[in-house]
Amino acid sequence: MHFFRFKKNQLYCEEQSVEAIAQKVATPFYLYSQKTIVENFGRIDRAFSGLDHLICYALKANSNEALLSLLAECGAGADVVSRGELFLAIKSGFDPKKIVYAGVGKRDDEIKFALEKNILAFNVESTEELGVINGIAGGLKKKAPVAIRINPNIDIHGHPYISTGKSADKFGIELPVARATIHDLGQYSNIQLIGLHCHLGSQITEIAPYLRAVKILRDLADEVRLAGHTLLYVDIGGGLGVSYQNVFDDLEAVSDTPIDLAQLVQRLRPDFQSLGCKVIFEPGRALVAEAGILVTRVLYQKVSQGKRFVIVDAAMNDLIRPSLYGAYHEIVPVLKRGGEWVHADVVGPICESGDFLGRDRRLPELARGDLLAIMTAGAYGFVLSSNYNARPRPAEILVDGSGYRLIRPAGQVDTLWT
Amino acid sequence: MHFFRFKKNQLYCEEQSVEAIAQKVATPFYLYSQKTIVENFGRIDRAFSGLDHLICYALKANSNEALLSLLAECGAGADVVSRGELFLAIKSGFDPKKIVYAGVGKRDDEIKFALEKNILAFNVESTEELGVINGIAGGLKKKAPVAIRINPNIDIHGHPYISTGKSADKFGIELPVARATIHDLGQYSNIQLIGLHCHLGSQITEIAPYLRAVKILRDLADEVRLAGHTLLYVDIGGGLGVSYQNVFDDLEAVSDTPIDLAQLVQRLRPDFQSLGCKVIFEPGRALVAEAGILVTRVLYQKVSQGKRFVIVDAAMNDLIRPSLYGAYHEIVPVLKRGGEWVHADVVGPICESGDFLGRDRRLPELARGDLLAIMTAGAYGFVLSSNYNARPRPAEILVDGSGYRLIRPAGQVDTLWT
Repeated sequence: MHFFRFKKNQLYCEEQSVEAIAQKVATPFYLYSQKTIVENFGRIDRAFSGLDHLICYALKANSNEALLSLLAECGAGADVVSRGELFLAIKSGFDPKKIVYAGVGKRDDEIKFALEKNILAFNVESTEELGVINGIAGGLKKKAPVAIRINPNIDIHGHPYISTGKSADKFGIELPVARATIHDLGQYSNIQLIGLHCHLGSQITEIAPYLRAVKILRDLADEVRLAGHTLLYVDIGGGLGVSYQNVFDDLEAVSDTPIDLAQLVQRLRPDFQSLGCKVIFEPGRALVAEAGILVTRVLYQKVSQGKRFVIVDAAMNDLIRPSLYGAYHEIVPVLKRGGEWVHADVVGPICESGDFLGRDRRLPELARGDLLAIMTAGAYGFVLSSNYNARPRPAEILVDGSGYRLIRPAGQVDTLWT
Repeated sequence: MHFFRFKKNQLYCEEQSVEAIAQKVATPFYLYSQKTIVENFGRIDRAFSGLDHLICYALKANSNEALLSLLAECGAGADVVSRGELFLAIKSGFDPKKIVYAGVGKRDDEIKFALEKNILAFNVESTEELGVINGIAGGLKKKAPVAIRINPNIDIHGHPYISTGKSADKFGIELPVARATIHDLGQYSNIQLIGLHCHLGSQITEIAPYLRAVKILRDLADEVRLAGHTLLYVDIGGGLGVSYQNVFDDLEAVSDTPIDLAQLVQRLRPDFQSLGCKVIFEPGRALVAEAGILVTRVLYQKVSQGKRFVIVDAAMNDLIRPSLYGAYHEIVPVLKRGGEWVHADVVGPICESGDFLGRDRRLPELARGDLLAIMTAGAYGFVLSSNYNARPRPAEILVDGSGYRLIRPAGQVDTLWT
């Protein structure tokens, strides 16, 4: 669900013409729709209505402070994975008591910072980490609230880089070890076990993995209570897939249709109710991916051995998902004109063949200066940007209705890599 | 060739203990050996001795200003691909008359900036670009010096992302089009054709592709002169491979042995001499890759389904080559101790399975806090770094003999993504 539409062959973000913005702002730039984020949050929040729940936005998808403030105002909590993300979350107005802190490699200074900020809990990923948190909490004379992140050994059939809940992954604690830890928690005198957590991976488009994971968590919740702990929440992670194709519903159906979340939660409702505690859900991509596009301008076109290349001013340093994950992003002209359609690779100015945004795409005939929109770029776009080839990062713009504002200026050549 | 050595089981960079630096500088950090860069430059420069030549360092490999100044002082020219790289090259002391500017997507403002700085030449990648440069030069009442970058259609058998000289790549101008352009240059009244260029790709470990490319360039050089142009240089690109394995010569031989450059140039010497003009060579990786390491500390270890994970404080945001290219970097302990050897994945704290630095590596038993060195990380390391997961970038340190200095401070949480 998003608010990008063609009106009279012109691409609009909400009530704002994309071309009009590109007359004022140098390309490439990221453009976000506020209404899309707010509506997505509302849709996810409503799916859990009637349940004691907390929607913790996964900052790793996009941590622009304007978007964070927006989600904090919506009532979201935050899922952070580093000191930097915790800093940004607090600065942007998230209540620390709604912040969970995950990640397999929490440093001592990060743990100390999070304890001082009184976050809701650490999602603990190894027994060694549990010992380290226990020691640091002891030094601060605090009890550290933790959830055990289990590795449920469930395959989500995704790209190997985005699966996080299989045993061969680095994430979470194997079930037998988690069970032993729960029963043996007395040795950690500065730890308070308050939750259970699992996260299956990213871009999940089937409901079966969630159903299996919640069953495992529910059984484990009983063991937690039997061991004498007060379970305050079960965190089912995020990973909800979004549609990267059929963005304007004018192409044939493909397989990455997202899950109907309301239906999924309905299926899980009896399990959630029997848990008798808060349910935490951690969407990242599902909140912001469709809300963002990358706007770029055609620089040159060339044909080599019959292969056509459209060279644009955005590159893999701006959006690395196509190179890194082989990810597909729909690419559309900002102004639809007549003319013949051609097949072309859309590539950037960076000096390597891995610098492409789309391969063998059907596009109308284009001219130098034409604008293209790379769709569904709101998640894992800007946050993965770099200064490769000494290219400053693109600006970020937020549209609200018929207005827009700069929410991060473009980088400058004299402050690269700072 | 590099100056990292084990002395009494301790890793040294030149005369400096790596562990001693890590006691003062927070991990992770990049550490470079000045002597390695200087010696590498000397070795490459000597290979061309007796020939009119210019070694243009390809900034895209690593554009830290301290390293750039060092290479400028050695007498190197520069190969730049963006306004940012041109800015850094000039700021670091490179003579503009030794700077060539390549890249398939030069923007108008970049072309204007380069013309104003009076660089040696643009390596032109399409006929459309030639027209744009011609127009901008006309506006500035200048003649733009250019070299035609040809696409020689030579396969280097590398990773598909690093091949740049095949016809299906976006780089250069196909030979028939290049020929026609050379004969038809009268229409571009503000263009002065002074060179020919080709670049085959990266990490080349065979000499055959270079031999074929130089033959093509030599034949084309004759045509350039017949068409009445004064050829000042032929630029054979870079792409020289380095050894990512056997860094300390204590493992069995593998196939990525680098080319003997002296021998290659010897083979090409008759062709170069018959060209009767300057030869430009554009090494990037060959100058700096082996000169740099990434130093990181062990945070946690865990075993999942029998698979061992060593979690360190460096991650894919610091060094993305393993994730992006499946690249291999040797990983060694900074202090060699006794004990059993184990096989483990070395992974970072970032929340995705693609965040690994090495898979199934043979390592000695490690303890929390131990230091590891990720070798051969001087090229395409820091320049591809990002702030993913809101992680500040690592510091960069330059060792010179028994001293060292900070050549870029680590990033800060409150200035992420600037």
